[in-house]
Amino acid sequence: MIQQTPRTTTSRMPKRTQYDEELVYSILDEALFCTISYAIDNQPFSIPTAFVRKENRLYIHGSVGSHFLRGIESGIPVCISVMLTDSLVVAKSAFHHSVNYRSVIIFSNAVKHEEFDEKASFFQELTEKIVPNSWDYLRPMKASEVNKTTLLSFEILEASARMRTGMPNDDEADKELPIWSGIIPIPSKRLTPVADENSVGIQLPEHLENMQ
Amino acid sequence: MIQQTPRTTTSRMPKRTQYDEELVYSILDEALFCTISYAIDNQPFSIPTAFVRKENRLYIHGSVGSHFLRGIESGIPVCISVMLTDSLVVAKSAFHHSVNYRSVIIFSNAVKHEEFDEKASFFQELTEKIVPNSWDYLRPMKASEVNKTTLLSFEILEASARMRTGMPNDDEADKELPIWSGIIPIPSKRLTPVADENSVGIQLPEHLENMQ
Repeated sequence: MIQQTPRTTTSRMPKRTQYDEELVYSILDEALFCTISYAIDNQPFSIPTAFVRKENRLYIHGSVGSHFLRGIESGIPVCISVMLTDSLVVAKSAFHHSVNYRSVIIFSNAVKHEEFDEKASFFQELTEKIVPNSWDYLRPMKASEVNKTTLLSFEILEASARMRTGMPNDDEADKELPIWSGIIPIPSKRLTPVADENSVGIQLPEHLENMQ
Repeated sequence: MIQQTPRTTTSRMPKRTQYDEELVYSILDEALFCTISYAIDNQPFSIPTAFVRKENRLYIHGSVGSHFLRGIESGIPVCISVMLTDSLVVAKSAFHHSVNYRSVIIFSNAVKHEEFDEKASFFQELTEKIVPNSWDYLRPMKASEVNKTTLLSFEILEASARMRTGMPNDDEADKELPIWSGIIPIPSKRLTPVADENSVGIQLPEHLENMQ
């Protein structure tokens, strides 16, 4: 279960912040990338990276040589940020312009996973998250590929979701102005796949058709 | 001019990292949101927020009551992260799956801007960035709205851009496999605007048509 703490309690527009596990997980499962922040001598560092959520943990990976992963694998405090932007909110005044978004913040600490099977499973889960139903179609994973990968995970316990939905909140006095107001949806769309030179004459597999 | 420092020098795939001012600015000008990280007692915090670049500075704003802005306005070290995701890179093996992205990292410190005119200009620049050519159409900004806003900026000096472009880098031995490989573009598209209940009968202004 997700726990609300002073660090995840927001003072500005607190109604936009929620501690519902299902909501947090739904945002994490839709997003492909997170930004992971950590600090050394109070100097913050941030890295965007792909991730997978599984039960109450968030998994990331990288090369065993990664400076970033080696910096956080000891379990120093990290802050993980995820944001999905749904639409631009266009009000009748500049001041009330806004953005409809769904975001998650997680405070946690890395745990390193050394087991071969766990690392191999992660690759399958990440691949299936990014391109659903593609795992069995691909050249099978090699043991050497698994071995040169570091896998870290973070418990999703001290976490919160923050979101804005709906139409502009214009001032009462502005609502009758003859100025257009509403939203502009800005979804991230998957467009038609583009084959590389090694795929000439190879049919686009079914799982890559109509992905959206 | 952007300066390369040990903190912005990457060890993994260094060719993906560049210190070109024009490239850094072009990514910042295309992205609407950044993630700002700071640390207190080595506990990192991250906040996604909208921003504007102007010359060699990045500007953010918020309520004068914002806990986050008050936490960083003293000039403590921050790390600003921006990422544009252009396409999913689908290789013949899971291991070589990747993402085409353009990202920027900036290490900097906040400066607070108290001047009314600077704050008012910021609103115009942010509004024009989010919805080009819309400023003159909107209800004019009120002095009270400017006064309840905090404006911070960050020098873009210790910064780097990191990007991946192009097709999958499959293993030589895999290139002849009859497995489809290529990219799936994932641009963030602006869709048809949706009017709210206060805009019934108001014509969509020209600057909101064909935004993409």
